[in-house]
Amino acid sequence: MTSRAGLRLYIDTPLAAHAHLPMAETHAHYLRNVLRRGPGDEVCLFNGRDGEWRARIATLDKRGGAFQTEDMTRAQTPEDGPWLVVAAIKRAPLELIVEKATELGAARICPVTTQRTNTERINSDRLAAIAIEAAEQCSRLTVPLIAQTKPLNDVLRDWPTPRRLYLLDETGAGTSIVSAFASHPREQGAAILIGPEGGFAESELDAMKFLPFVNALDLGNRILRAETAALAALACFQAIAGDWA
Amino acid sequence: MTSRAGLRLYIDTPLAAHAHLPMAETHAHYLRNVLRRGPGDEVCLFNGRDGEWRARIATLDKRGGAFQTEDMTRAQTPEDGPWLVVAAIKRAPLELIVEKATELGAARICPVTTQRTNTERINSDRLAAIAIEAAEQCSRLTVPLIAQTKPLNDVLRDWPTPRRLYLLDETGAGTSIVSAFASHPREQGAAILIGPEGGFAESELDAMKFLPFVNALDLGNRILRAETAALAALACFQAIAGDWA
Repeated sequence: MTSRAGLRLYIDTPLAAHAHLPMAETHAHYLRNVLRRGPGDEVCLFNGRDGEWRARIATLDKRGGAFQTEDMTRAQTPEDGPWLVVAAIKRAPLELIVEKATELGAARICPVTTQRTNTERINSDRLAAIAIEAAEQCSRLTVPLIAQTKPLNDVLRDWPTPRRLYLLDETGAGTSIVSAFASHPREQGAAILIGPEGGFAESELDAMKFLPFVNALDLGNRILRAETAALAALACFQAIAGDWA
Repeated sequence: MTSRAGLRLYIDTPLAAHAHLPMAETHAHYLRNVLRRGPGDEVCLFNGRDGEWRARIATLDKRGGAFQTEDMTRAQTPEDGPWLVVAAIKRAPLELIVEKATELGAARICPVTTQRTNTERINSDRLAAIAIEAAEQCSRLTVPLIAQTKPLNDVLRDWPTPRRLYLLDETGAGTSIVSAFASHPREQGAAILIGPEGGFAESELDAMKFLPFVNALDLGNRILRAETAALAALACFQAIAGDWA
């Protein structure tokens, strides 16, 4: 691991050397009122495209502020982690999934509705904010994309083959996670699919059986909550077939 | 996985066929006032030793209640999962670790104090209650033991060799988690050690380097929160060297 990250902020503007960048209102408030920083203090900035840059607070007052970039501290590298396709579950576990999946390197999180989801409305803005904060803290150079919530059937219909979709199958019919991930064809990309608390409907499982891009995985004999299964599978993927391997 | 668990309760008394068992006050309250159950309703009971038993509520009123056992639904099997030795961290992430580690099959959770722990007092009773509830819901037949909080040095001094201790080393000096767990000597047992938010002190890492039962592991380039690292390592262990393998 790299050393503990200092203050890192995600910013949605192009980054280059010696640029003067107006601060978003939320950053100005956070730096001034929460962290009590002021002009001259150092921060690192990243935008998901241009690497990470050392910058200083150039101005900061009640009306806003600006950053002045200095030099690049890390060059952008591809971070094409696995995707997570996750049934809409309750707010707290879904937020936990977004935070932890960001730390674990997921590139994209796609909430889906299934036959047994209790669709509470998903607040994508809030999930995106959680992903940004987790990315800032875990030293990623990208923020995972939070996709629009869609019905599972639509996501399967429009699936970007050849990306593999690993289905966490709690009926016990799946193959072992180690053997599946150990033979993952890396050039194809991966996604992990987690069902709702009540599990997938039988008709959903039956339909997915015949999709050539789906592999069903087994996660042992204990009943895992959706968020536990999601994070366990992501960790195993990174260890066996991802960027920890 | 087995089918979704029905109502399961952990009970701290011997279990056998056709036994009449007085109900703990908390169970009587929970069944009567929270779940609105009554005499004749079915529950499953387990105590960590005698398997899982089908039982019925024999009596239940304001003053308490009793169970009447019927037949055994699952025989006791060994559940000698990995241990988790975890630096005392804040209450919310520590409680998350206990809940998720129970689902992931940890046999024992040992909170430790280290040079950089901010020792808030650890409420072991509360952690034990969380472990029981998670065990009831994930269909385990045992509840992980919550050990008394001790200084890391004491735990290392009294270490039950030959059990292996896998140290999550965020300095990047460890070996890959897959290769370490793939060559884990199963008959020796395993434990996973997670440091505090500020990491281990250098002197702690140096001292552990020379302990023959310690292996340092690397968990990639992102900075993981303590609870994320703990659950990721546990999941990888179960997948590669544990009861998912």
